[in-house]
Amino acid sequence: MNRLYHYPLSPFSRKVRLSLAEKRIEVELVEERYWERDADFLRRNPAGKVPVLKMNNRVMADSTAICEYLEETHPTPALLPKDAETRYEVRRLVAWFDDKFNEEVTTKLMGERVFRKVMGTGYPDSANVKAGAKAIKYHLDYMAWLLDQRRWLAGNDMTLADFAAAAHLSCLDYVSDVDWNRSEIVKDWYAKIKSRPAFRSILADQISGFPQPGHYADLDF
Amino acid sequence: MNRLYHYPLSPFSRKVRLSLAEKRIEVELVEERYWERDADFLRRNPAGKVPVLKMNNRVMADSTAICEYLEETHPTPALLPKDAETRYEVRRLVAWFDDKFNEEVTTKLMGERVFRKVMGTGYPDSANVKAGAKAIKYHLDYMAWLLDQRRWLAGNDMTLADFAAAAHLSCLDYVSDVDWNRSEIVKDWYAKIKSRPAFRSILADQISGFPQPGHYADLDF
Repeated sequence: MNRLYHYPLSPFSRKVRLSLAEKRIEVELVEERYWERDADFLRRNPAGKVPVLKMNNRVMADSTAICEYLEETHPTPALLPKDAETRYEVRRLVAWFDDKFNEEVTTKLMGERVFRKVMGTGYPDSANVKAGAKAIKYHLDYMAWLLDQRRWLAGNDMTLADFAAAAHLSCLDYVSDVDWNRSEIVKDWYAKIKSRPAFRSILADQISGFPQPGHYADLDF
Repeated sequence: MNRLYHYPLSPFSRKVRLSLAEKRIEVELVEERYWERDADFLRRNPAGKVPVLKMNNRVMADSTAICEYLEETHPTPALLPKDAETRYEVRRLVAWFDDKFNEEVTTKLMGERVFRKVMGTGYPDSANVKAGAKAIKYHLDYMAWLLDQRRWLAGNDMTLADFAAAAHLSCLDYVSDVDWNRSEIVKDWYAKIKSRPAFRSILADQISGFPQPGHYADLDF
């Protein structure tokens, strides 16, 4: 049985979960409190991060490398388009969310509000929370600008770029940090991706100490 | 003419420079002091980072997305192997150096010793320098362990993984932060990659305020 070591509010784990589900690859989910640096876990991934995928007796780490591998070994349905230009655009946007958005928004909001409590590293730093709350507006506006010209973030088909964005936004939405009223077009995009069967397991996530808010799993949010 | 906006001591720029040179794609190098957030530059890349490649009237950002694009549009010589398993390993290692090594070593050493001076953001934080100097040992040992089983970092052929690693290490070597005596096998690997024609432009780099040390461009270091 394939196995994914993950943490429910890790956007990198969620990106891989969405990829696996969209490609109908069954995995057993194993929750990993990766910051406790358990020796077995570090043996599986010396980088000490989630997700880690165990598949066909291989142990794989790094969400982007995993998604590229899944794309090459399970090409249908495709999450990367065929032409090099759009493939570039997908990869640029995946990096946009996993690097820039993660640094400016996810670690600022989730990092302070959730991970400090879960990991026991003290109280949230309000300057970080404020900076994250400010930065997410600019990112939502950038998404609105992209979606005004395209059906999905990287073009007219749904790709890994949409999964990367939805992975971060769904984590933030779990702690009610996304103002969906800011942009109709971004809200419509999220409603579309949220209603896909691949999203079901993510909408069912429950994190102890953080009750799921009512709108989180609601398709008509 | 193709144009690469770069900064000489940016490992992400160097990875792309190595890729372009290995594939014999000619580019004009334009030094970009990206932290000054010049309006023209931000228009080219709203992420505000180097490298940015202007090629065939397209403007591209994110070093990993650029390298994948170059691989798809200029497949010879190949910097990604053919089989999905080794491709995964290359991508995992590129992420290892660009994420983990960068965070634990490059930003700690280069960030404090060089960028603070260049950007004018104060004196080096000695705790960071100490942490970086400690972490690089562990990374060099990891490379030695990999190279003990393989000719190059990801397998028996030179790949993007070697370029990612060499990009970081060559930046650190410019400020004499690499102890090449720690591992014979890692030193041999660096000597091999350093003597490639693709490396020449990197060995010719001069950074104002930081004279090039004697061993830096020496193939017999």
